[in-house]
Amino acid sequence: MTVTPPFEDRAGFLSLLLAAPDADGAAVAAAKARDAVLTKPPGALGRLEDLAVWMAGWQGRAAPEINAPQVVVFAGNHGVAAQGVSAFPADVTVQMVANFEAGGAAINQLCRVTGAAMTVVALDLDRPTADFTQEAALTEADLVAALQAGWMSVDPASDLFIAGEMGIGNSTPAAAIAAALFGGTGADWAGRGTGLDDAGLGRKATVVDAGLARHADAGRDGLEVLRRLGGREIAAMAGAIAAARHHRIPVLLDGFICCAAAACLAAEHQDALDHCRAGHASAEQAHRRLLEKLGLDPILDLGLRLGEGSGAALALAVLQGAVACHSGMATFAEAGVSDGA
Amino acid sequence: MTVTPPFEDRAGFLSLLLAAPDADGAAVAAAKARDAVLTKPPGALGRLEDLAVWMAGWQGRAAPEINAPQVVVFAGNHGVAAQGVSAFPADVTVQMVANFEAGGAAINQLCRVTGAAMTVVALDLDRPTADFTQEAALTEADLVAALQAGWMSVDPASDLFIAGEMGIGNSTPAAAIAAALFGGTGADWAGRGTGLDDAGLGRKATVVDAGLARHADAGRDGLEVLRRLGGREIAAMAGAIAAARHHRIPVLLDGFICCAAAACLAAEHQDALDHCRAGHASAEQAHRRLLEKLGLDPILDLGLRLGEGSGAALALAVLQGAVACHSGMATFAEAGVSDGA
Repeated sequence: MTVTPPFEDRAGFLSLLLAAPDADGAAVAAAKARDAVLTKPPGALGRLEDLAVWMAGWQGRAAPEINAPQVVVFAGNHGVAAQGVSAFPADVTVQMVANFEAGGAAINQLCRVTGAAMTVVALDLDRPTADFTQEAALTEADLVAALQAGWMSVDPASDLFIAGEMGIGNSTPAAAIAAALFGGTGADWAGRGTGLDDAGLGRKATVVDAGLARHADAGRDGLEVLRRLGGREIAAMAGAIAAARHHRIPVLLDGFICCAAAACLAAEHQDALDHCRAGHASAEQAHRRLLEKLGLDPILDLGLRLGEGSGAALALAVLQGAVACHSGMATFAEAGVSDGA
Repeated sequence: MTVTPPFEDRAGFLSLLLAAPDADGAAVAAAKARDAVLTKPPGALGRLEDLAVWMAGWQGRAAPEINAPQVVVFAGNHGVAAQGVSAFPADVTVQMVANFEAGGAAINQLCRVTGAAMTVVALDLDRPTADFTQEAALTEADLVAALQAGWMSVDPASDLFIAGEMGIGNSTPAAAIAAALFGGTGADWAGRGTGLDDAGLGRKATVVDAGLARHADAGRDGLEVLRRLGGREIAAMAGAIAAARHHRIPVLLDGFICCAAAACLAAEHQDALDHCRAGHASAEQAHRRLLEKLGLDPILDLGLRLGEGSGAALALAVLQGAVACHSGMATFAEAGVSDGA
């Protein structure tokens, strides 16, 4: 088992990202062939059929399984939180980390019902990022350390990965990242997060605009945008999503912050998210737009806006159903059922 | 344990339906109060919060649980199938019943992953209903027997109920029921079912129109429409949904056929479906319209069109997550987390 990260700097991370493996085409073809002879009308399981074939490709087998799903919740604190961009005080980040560790949060319950292993990675909570309206949120060393922490958190033996997050104020850097990568203003990408009022929403948009103005020279360079406007837990999520790809582990993306992290990878490599599906569309107003920019169609749309990986963990329950049907159903021949042809 | 049905005729069934219990208002209030102090921003679990409170009301406790979910798949054959309204031959009904019993169908896999108990109730498969374009599909005795079979299939000890179905041709009677109860023509309510081509779809609409014309005098009388245009498995689903209400067991409705059965109850008693939520919107074209007529908002929208209870069973996985969050999460006080107030 690797105990040191496989990269030491940004260039090393990018090399791994660009060399990422693709899905197994033979397994995809075999899974499609299996789907066609299962005891159901063609296409009758809708989206479940696509999900099962996608899983087959990344797991490299016609009949995929989910025996070891993994959820990692990354936590970080943000300098911009001091500007009143959240409905909750920054102390809540460390308090919620204790709640995750004690098993009391929503994500703990969702991991229990889906059988997912869950760990929490708290990233220097006593050392918030710099306020991105003043300077880059992260130093180069901080960025690399967070990418490494994310990468190393992924268990190569897991068969489905979810990155969750906790970080008071972190929908502000996520909005700034989305605006930097896809264009638009703070007002286009800022949402109410955990429950901002109108005045807070206005402040948040202004903070995003200030960050965009200060770091305009980052252009649409994914990792540079991540360093300037992101945060430790966001960078760690990007590192984890990239590591999952390296290990050919399929990923269910969570909400707006998770997708902002993923977008930084997509900006570096257009196929970087081929191993990902969107678990849900959240109630954060710009999430659906971000999903569209990433070409992702959410599995669920239930108005969640909690983070923690909760929307993806709920989608995991659906994915488990999809895989169970695909891999467990009898074929027409096995069951002696007329196939209608 | 009751071993004889609690009604002997239509009037007896209607008396039970009209005397159905309501949700426990105190449990609803207690569940809302609990939701407000859980370690999450208010409203952040979106639809999951509503589902948990709804479950609390029907289970009569602030912290609902799902320990004994039950799925019953009802199977029946239809005289109208001889008119070429399905892409599959009628023999498939009995073949699929064997597949359910052997554990090879989609619903078996979904019950396995959600821990639901599953049984199959095959209703006189060798005795298809009469062709409703010629006469009433069911006699009064057949209707009552099917309602009784459905009612008795519900385990009073279960804590969540799903009625699924299998019956080649049964989206045709379902379309006829919907048209009779809500207005419109065969073309408005007929869909492709298991995969009809355009010619088949045209035949199906014509068959529905012929049934509507022949049975126009049934008006919008729910049980009479069910008898004239329905089928044994559809009547049994109606009986089961009513029994679940009698036992205060919440129900997740499945697709178009299940909702047509439920609509017959709603036509008799406007509050008859208060204990129901729509598991999903299926790909059958008129299902969404039927859900709107019933005032139901589907939990999932994944393009399924299989029946068997599959969409509802998949929604059960989401409901299990909702209940787990509501009943398992720590409160702000328990976790020592600031509530942002």
